[in-house]
Amino acid sequence: MSARTITIKENILGANTEKAGINRKLLDRHHILMVNIMSSPGSGKTSVILRTIDRLRDSYRIAVIEGDVASSIDADKIAQQNIPAIQINTAGGCHLDAQMISKALDTLDLDRIDLIFLENVGNLVCTADFDLGAHKNAVILSIPEGDDKPRKYPVAFVEADVILVNKIDVLPYFDFKLDTFPGIINGLNPSARVFPVSAKTGEGMDGWFSWIEEILV
Amino acid sequence: MSARTITIKENILGANTEKAGINRKLLDRHHILMVNIMSSPGSGKTSVILRTIDRLRDSYRIAVIEGDVASSIDADKIAQQNIPAIQINTAGGCHLDAQMISKALDTLDLDRIDLIFLENVGNLVCTADFDLGAHKNAVILSIPEGDDKPRKYPVAFVEADVILVNKIDVLPYFDFKLDTFPGIINGLNPSARVFPVSAKTGEGMDGWFSWIEEILV
Repeated sequence: MSARTITIKENILGANTEKAGINRKLLDRHHILMVNIMSSPGSGKTSVILRTIDRLRDSYRIAVIEGDVASSIDADKIAQQNIPAIQINTAGGCHLDAQMISKALDTLDLDRIDLIFLENVGNLVCTADFDLGAHKNAVILSIPEGDDKPRKYPVAFVEADVILVNKIDVLPYFDFKLDTFPGIINGLNPSARVFPVSAKTGEGMDGWFSWIEEILV
Repeated sequence: MSARTITIKENILGANTEKAGINRKLLDRHHILMVNIMSSPGSGKTSVILRTIDRLRDSYRIAVIEGDVASSIDADKIAQQNIPAIQINTAGGCHLDAQMISKALDTLDLDRIDLIFLENVGNLVCTADFDLGAHKNAVILSIPEGDDKPRKYPVAFVEADVILVNKIDVLPYFDFKLDTFPGIINGLNPSARVFPVSAKTGEGMDGWFSWIEEILV
């Protein structure tokens, strides 16, 4: 990259971080927890969110902000559960930014929300560079993607507070070494929690639910 | 995006397209076919390339250019097959660009190569925006990712000459509707060829091998 390119990138990231801080302060004033969920396409972000809504909706008021390059497939699934769902289409952009989230927050009744899930664009590379104002970052890696992905796409895993290893219901059909995986994460990010789960069957999801509830208390 | 942002993006893409044209002319002078392979992380780009090397190496001289955010895991696997493998690390960048490919081509003995596979960064969003000088674009979608991905990430599928639906060996364990999938692609990109394959078992790969061989003749 040329010096000019670097300067532009620093300016973009600097302005984004400032806006993210404003978002976080707004959420704090309303006692809302916001969790940014990142993964590759098809790892199960929407499935995890739907399963979590099902479990926590009687205890907490939940909203979802959906980031997609195109379409409103995921937001439609959330809205079918009678949960407020704000669709952001990035028109080709590969990640959400703090300004998009600011506009989405403007449309929500923040006095009636306890918990917001941000479903980021399906992308393990670009998303983690942009602070959105969330309090916690969750990364989902699914069994079919393979256990070498944290070494190949380290930034998201380094930024994660919690890592869900999803689709453990199909573990017998893939070469993912689940027993040694926490060691790989420990080498990159020792403070991250790791929960092997299946959003499809519900297996292992209790640890993730408890993790959220402990922060919300 | 502001007007200035758009101008910068157009300038970057314009310079890239010009460089891509130079790469393609260089390859044409040496009678080399270059295929750009794009997918999400873990869809099976390296596995498809390894299986293809195994099948075509007696008939054609093959080289591989590996694009990764970090690590040389994939290039090491290729090099173990005694195939020239050039590693490009993008240092966080989410796609390859034509300048990177130009530098990689400089290191290869182009008079002794018939076929180059470009393994792009694992990313279904950013990669398709950048012409690299390849003659053909191949997109891999794996069964576990789900059959809704062409609607959610349309650009790569619109730019594809061929789409490999990989991991059909695990089709019974997922909700991917393989019979209606070609219709989804037909709506986006009627001229794209679709091959359901398993790079793991070899099932269905003959169609893909023939597709390459027909271009190379």
